[in-house]
Amino acid sequence: MTATPEQASTTPTGESVFDWIDARAQARAEAGLTHRLSPRPAGAVTLDLASTDYLGLARDKRVVGAAAAAALRWGAGATGARPASGSTEVHTELEYELAKFCGAPAALVFSSGFLANLGAVTALSGQGSAIVADQHIHASLIDGCRLAKADVAVAGHREPARVAHALSTRGDRRALVVTDSVFAVDGDLAPLPELAEVCRTHGAGLLVADVHGFGVLGPGGRGAVAEAGLVGDANVVTTLSLAAALGGQGGAVLGPRRVIRHLVDTARALHFDTGLAPASAAAALAALQVLRAEPERAERARAVAVELATRLRAAGLAASEPAAALVSVRAPSAQAALDWARACQAAGVAVGCARPPAGPDQVSRLRLTARAELTEADLDRVCEVLVSTAPAPAKP
Amino acid sequence: MTATPEQASTTPTGESVFDWIDARAQARAEAGLTHRLSPRPAGAVTLDLASTDYLGLARDKRVVGAAAAAALRWGAGATGARPASGSTEVHTELEYELAKFCGAPAALVFSSGFLANLGAVTALSGQGSAIVADQHIHASLIDGCRLAKADVAVAGHREPARVAHALSTRGDRRALVVTDSVFAVDGDLAPLPELAEVCRTHGAGLLVADVHGFGVLGPGGRGAVAEAGLVGDANVVTTLSLAAALGGQGGAVLGPRRVIRHLVDTARALHFDTGLAPASAAAALAALQVLRAEPERAERARAVAVELATRLRAAGLAASEPAAALVSVRAPSAQAALDWARACQAAGVAVGCARPPAGPDQVSRLRLTARAELTEADLDRVCEVLVSTAPAPAKP
Repeated sequence: MTATPEQASTTPTGESVFDWIDARAQARAEAGLTHRLSPRPAGAVTLDLASTDYLGLARDKRVVGAAAAAALRWGAGATGARPASGSTEVHTELEYELAKFCGAPAALVFSSGFLANLGAVTALSGQGSAIVADQHIHASLIDGCRLAKADVAVAGHREPARVAHALSTRGDRRALVVTDSVFAVDGDLAPLPELAEVCRTHGAGLLVADVHGFGVLGPGGRGAVAEAGLVGDANVVTTLSLAAALGGQGGAVLGPRRVIRHLVDTARALHFDTGLAPASAAAALAALQVLRAEPERAERARAVAVELATRLRAAGLAASEPAAALVSVRAPSAQAALDWARACQAAGVAVGCARPPAGPDQVSRLRLTARAELTEADLDRVCEVLVSTAPAPAKP
Repeated sequence: MTATPEQASTTPTGESVFDWIDARAQARAEAGLTHRLSPRPAGAVTLDLASTDYLGLARDKRVVGAAAAAALRWGAGATGARPASGSTEVHTELEYELAKFCGAPAALVFSSGFLANLGAVTALSGQGSAIVADQHIHASLIDGCRLAKADVAVAGHREPARVAHALSTRGDRRALVVTDSVFAVDGDLAPLPELAEVCRTHGAGLLVADVHGFGVLGPGGRGAVAEAGLVGDANVVTTLSLAAALGGQGGAVLGPRRVIRHLVDTARALHFDTGLAPASAAAALAALQVLRAEPERAERARAVAVELATRLRAAGLAASEPAAALVSVRAPSAQAALDWARACQAAGVAVGCARPPAGPDQVSRLRLTARAELTEADLDRVCEVLVSTAPAPAKP
């Protein structure tokens, strides 16, 4: 017997408690929304436009060497939450160097980017406060808002005027404005200077998730918040991923010292999860040093993005205008997007495929990361494959 | 000007937007609830009863060697979410071996234990469903319940009869019972066979977070769910940490194949966070092999826990009855707990210190992990230090 999704199984043996899952799976299969985990081998031969390893640091010898050495020196894990046994000198050094590089007063490292966002949003809002969020924010920020026990208002997408209106009607509650810098859906940029101005006018904090800006935008890849001149702002808090441009694992929050101390005392994601593995902290530290020494990587990623998007649009595909190194290409349906991504993969080009529930709408997209390592010849090949495998309604 | 916690700053320059944080910090300082991150050096000389490295695998040469080799071979990071570029053959092998070792049909690896719990609870509940939770569940399970959009009932602590009652009054909604196996607060054990029976009778799923049971309890350290004979149960889902007994980083969900497939399709914590670093996946795989080869480590951790608790109680301290390898000792206040933990640390014994908001009550505790590596001489020293540094009201 198959139970309907919202009904409990009544079988006395309880054998069909999870039967509702099969009905959901069937519906997803029909809508082209099934996912598979396809394990890659170590020596992948595909052109990689699917990963967020924007700068090619995940495989940089200095970075992996530092990770390996740290595992041998510090052990495989942090062995506890950061406030317990889970802080090593590597974590502290990484925090110091991250803050210094970006020009922020202080930084705090989390075990994942998702948890850095959860931790920052929840610790900086809370009961009786107001959150005003961009409509396209990342899932981790959305979940942070849901957990925050705050009154959450969604103020359109990249609309500072709507943010100002929401702030002006919040009464005397303290408020936090939450946005990504570069949105993962279409790779477009938040109006950070305008948002900061609105926040100043209305006495609100500004939380910017610079996951896709850090390492790509700003002076020497210091990120979108640095580009907007907001890193040292007493009312601005930035979150970063150590797993995107830095090529490793983990996340971080940068901001005023008192904000960081507040997170150390109160962020559940810090207190209730084992700290980042020392090898991952050391990898991020080494990657940061490479980025500092070779800022041209950031520039190259931006140039690749512009060229890729221009060429795809010239070929008639619905490519987005990239603000950083993310280019999205719309597909006519979830199934078409999936087939398209698979055809690209079969032709040796790995691309991302974002289908609902990813993203704020029902549109499915290919997601291309314009990695700094891609050569002109690579781009020729990528464009050729994307165009030749495009589903009918997406073709010129 | 210091704004009150729930009021917005009205300073036009916005300089005092985060002033409310200072008031909170002051209140925490007065209540002994301030936390510091104390970075440890690589060659720590303290006796470690603070970490969750129960079996001493975090520094095992086979484990760290595997982590280092994997970093060099696979790169520093997974480079994307698991459904995108973030699945390697190491992740798949780890999932296969975890499932095989525990006797579960399938497994899925997450980037952290916190996210494994968030992912499992949210994906297996949802709007229109009911969750019945133990009062002492871990913060990550609580946050999962908050995100689940389900009707959540808290049914006491270790009270299957109350769980049965909550299930019997839920109407025709599907239901999920959520519990830890070994509770992190006092190290006590959930009545898993009784809960499973209640779930069978009432047609509910059972989700068990076996973070502190896996590697310590059950045949060969296969965990509390294995001990209760529930691993292959079609209605039971288990979550694990790869960062506790296995000594590394990450989390996993084990259960029926359709449940795992459902998580692959729908778990936000899987889709919206970069996958576990290959080095951490390889470390967990190696740690699992050590555990399989040396099951006496699990036995030793249990024996150390019993001896430690017995001796501390004999000395008049309020030590808990350990079901696995966690022993908690009550302290008269948060400040007293903090001072006590610091005095132990100064005397060369590292212990955990759980203060509110950790835990379901306002009690502060020292948290001791009975690690398999501790010798009889170590235990003599630990007991001596704990007793001699105990705050007045906790002394005999």
